[in-house]
Amino acid sequence: MIDDGEFIRGKVPMTKQEIRVLTIAKARLKPSDVVVDVGAGTGSLSIEAAMLCRKVYALERNVEAIELIRKNIEKFSIDNVEIIHEEAPRGLDRIEKIDAALIGGSGGFLTEILDALDQRLAPNGRIVLNCISIESVSKALNWFRARENYLCDAIQVQINRIERIGRVDMMKALNPIYIISAIKGGFDNV
Amino acid sequence: MIDDGEFIRGKVPMTKQEIRVLTIAKARLKPSDVVVDVGAGTGSLSIEAAMLCRKVYALERNVEAIELIRKNIEKFSIDNVEIIHEEAPRGLDRIEKIDAALIGGSGGFLTEILDALDQRLAPNGRIVLNCISIESVSKALNWFRARENYLCDAIQVQINRIERIGRVDMMKALNPIYIISAIKGGFDNV
Amino acid sequence: MIDDGEFIRGKVPMTKQEIRVLTIAKARLKPSDVVVDVGAGTGSLSIEAAMLCRKVYALERNVEAIELIRKNIEKFSIDNVEIIHEEAPRGLDRIEKIDAALIGGSGGFLTEILDALDQRLAPNGRIVLNCISIESVSKALNWFRARENYLCDAIQVQINRIERIGRVDMMKALNPIYIISAIKGGFDNV
Amino acid sequence: MIDDGEFIRGKVPMTKQEIRVLTIAKARLKPSDVVVDVGAGTGSLSIEAAMLCRKVYALERNVEAIELIRKNIEKFSIDNVEIIHEEAPRGLDRIEKIDAALIGGSGGFLTEILDALDQRLAPNGRIVLNCISIESVSKALNWFRARENYLCDAIQVQINRIERIGRVDMMKALNPIYIISAIKGGFDNV
Repeated sequence: MIDDGEFIRGKVPMTKQEIRVLTIAKARLKPSDVVVDVGAGTGSLSIEAAMLCRKVYALERNVEAIELIRKNIEKFSIDNVEIIHEEAPRGLDRIEKIDAALIGGSGGFLTEILDALDQRLAPNGRIVLNCISIESVSKALNWFRARENYLCDAIQVQINRIERIGRVDMMKALNPIYIISAIKGGFDNV
Repeated sequence: MIDDGEFIRGKVPMTKQEIRVLTIAKARLKPSDVVVDVGAGTGSLSIEAAMLCRKVYALERNVEAIELIRKNIEKFSIDNVEIIHEEAPRGLDRIEKIDAALIGGSGGFLTEILDALDQRLAPNGRIVLNCISIESVSKALNWFRARENYLCDAIQVQINRIERIGRVDMMKALNPIYIISAIKGGFDNV
Repeated sequence: MIDDGEFIRGKVPMTKQEIRVLTIAKARLKPSDVVVDVGAGTGSLSIEAAMLCRKVYALERNVEAIELIRKNIEKFSIDNVEIIHEEAPRGLDRIEKIDAALIGGSGGFLTEILDALDQRLAPNGRIVLNCISIESVSKALNWFRARENYLCDAIQVQINRIERIGRVDMMKALNPIYIISAIKGGFDNV
Repeated sequence: MIDDGEFIRGKVPMTKQEIRVLTIAKARLKPSDVVVDVGAGTGSLSIEAAMLCRKVYALERNVEAIELIRKNIEKFSIDNVEIIHEEAPRGLDRIEKIDAALIGGSGGFLTEILDALDQRLAPNGRIVLNCISIESVSKALNWFRARENYLCDAIQVQINRIERIGRVDMMKALNPIYIISAIKGGFDNV
């Protein structure tokens, strides 16, 4: 588990530690997995996944974010992350087979991204989305529920940090995140 | 119910609308009530209470806040709010009998404030506190639980605003607030 | 403000006190208002509204709930609530003009209910919905956002009760509720 | 990551999956670590820790819980969990040196448990507490803040499950949990 402060950030929004931890856990990553991080942002999820898995593709459209991912890869001496500078779903066709997909940002193309991932996702493959809008939650749930071969689980997570300010411990809220996770086929193993 | 945007604010922290509404409701204000608003801040709670009750005392130590209370009283054409510029519990001795006390800020003197209020609180009087720190919650619960003649109720409230940003509805968290409310004696009527 | 325990309940789900208080506040009820409570359940919202307004229609499809509403009306000696035993949007055509609509349950007909309310809602009329499902939130936001003459505001409310169990104060969560409130036209007055 | 449903439970309360995941992550477990799980309950945390670490001691006072821990150890074929049937802090003196302590339950002896752990905790050792009461949060924060050689971090986590009921996705709240984590000395490495 890496602390938020260890990542190089700039102004690109970053998935917070607790959400990273839950996202990675829900993705049930294995050492042999090929992972794609869609909307990789600062690369924080990519780097945590790369420490657990064979290969991670970091897909990101934003130039500034691409630069941050590069710097973070270097900082953490990671050699199994490959950056794809594209706007998803474009770029997903460069990956042959995916064991787990982490979706941190979908830029309004969530349905198209899920369709493209579905083509490449291995049996027992996992998709885990972090959503901050009602629209994305709704779209994602509808997409998974319309497909009988996905088993879907969804939570909302709200974290309040208890921060020492002077002599008291104040509660400070982080924005709530919806985490939607699904596993494809092979339900015997779930 | 007054919208947050209608109050003149400056940099003084203001109790948000939903918390004001719940605080006022928990205080079970009646037209004949004399109310004190301890740590009145911008005066938002004082003004909402003044619209429902005979008399409100706004107790506040901060000069900038006092000025805001004055401006808000003028803006809302309120004539039954009296400002007491003191640091609580000082100033409470100027009020003979209190039917309801709203505590928005205690400046580290919570126990002393509760002790002073207890002296002046009428039978069936109510005390409602908004706390943002674990320490205050803990202190307040301990104070009330040590006294058999108070019936105490406590909740934590977390509000997320759903804000339209571009074409999506994002969840934005407000800091959670603990609302502790107690009624003194006269339990037959509760 | 009425305590939850004062209502006669049975097994019909009841809007909790804090949510009732916020719902009533967001509806900005005035003494001259005609209010409809759609999916009235135990009648708790109808009764609180009836204490503030000229006339309340309690619309409810469930027979058991209708009986509870009757009992609660009697218990609180209310004489300005009229029960309409129908499944909304049916029954709304019996009300000529509505100043405020509270929607506690929509039974899957939310769009139809909003369409029917829109026909009867007075200028400056308010609609306040309590939603517990993502689908309803999504439908309601879409309905309001597609109409330029409604100003819409949405929050999620999470209440944790702090309950004394033995010698400690435990946090117990209530299910989160989305409250969507909108005002029709007449934006100068908002 | 193990699903809640995979553990044998009975009526003993169990730390939920998301809280287990965050607790384990905050404990920064390493393969060489000796871990103690205080108030082990069903043993769910002990078992997850045992999959990551050399040795786990499951300390528990309740006979029924001890039986469940045994069954779960067997079910998951774990051979590095040692059960200590005692009421903490008793039993901690059987462990020579502790790298990480997970405290799921303290039975009113939190201060004594922290004192005893402090004696045995290795440099850079971690303590992670799950609290459900304001009292425990307050006690724990006070304990850590009074000691300069501990670096303390605290959050409140609220999880809502989105459950498919009929044709809609309802939000169901889990009780909020406070997670307090601290690391002892050796701050250069944090």
